[in-house]
Amino acid sequence: MSELSERDCVPCKAGVPPLKGEALADWQMKLGNGWEIVNEHHLEKSFAFKNFREALAFTNRVGALAEQQRHHPDIGLSWGRVKIAIWTHKTDGLSESDFILAAKIDQIT
Amino acid sequence: MSELSERDCVPCKAGVPPLKGEALADWQMKLGNGWEIVNEHHLEKSFAFKNFREALAFTNRVGALAEQQRHHPDIGLSWGRVKIAIWTHKTDGLSESDFILAAKIDQIT
Repeated sequence: MSELSERDCVPCKAGVPPLKGEALADWQMKLGNGWEIVNEHHLEKSFAFKNFREALAFTNRVGALAEQQRHHPDIGLSWGRVKIAIWTHKTDGLSESDFILAAKIDQIT
Repeated sequence: MSELSERDCVPCKAGVPPLKGEALADWQMKLGNGWEIVNEHHLEKSFAFKNFREALAFTNRVGALAEQQRHHPDIGLSWGRVKIAIWTHKTDGLSESDFILAAKIDQIT
């Protein structure tokens, strides 16, 4: 878990297929609770907050991390809730960098 | 258009039914381009930006407005795009305040 969050997202290499099946299951075991792999396509997790202001503050922390890692999730912000979706757009599927970003996001909640 | 954005969102009164049919159409005519009424339930509009940083900055402007108006839309933030959805949760439908918030959001793009 800590190992994963200490790594950096890397640009996806051309021709590398997205992770599927057992490879995905192995990666999921390294992640924290609450992350769901949806359709072997993206990672998803909802984070609860006590009001809008705190949800917006988390959105900004995720935004700063995304810019630093040059890897940008989809962020769904609503009152008291932030829903994160992560995938690798170049391959329209999951890569190691997606799991690294997820682990890093868990560390800034 | 300018009139609408100059008004303030008001808390929904109990027992006031959501706007439907012609009443909705009348309100939509007062709104700027790009807003869609979805299933007579919520307003939706996508805003395009040249990068993630500008989309996040807009998210923060919308967040500040939402706090000021005490009316919070759902905000979908992704690279170069912000998708706003507005409705009145208390009646699970649309009210005048939703159109006022939409007009105010158009003014801070």
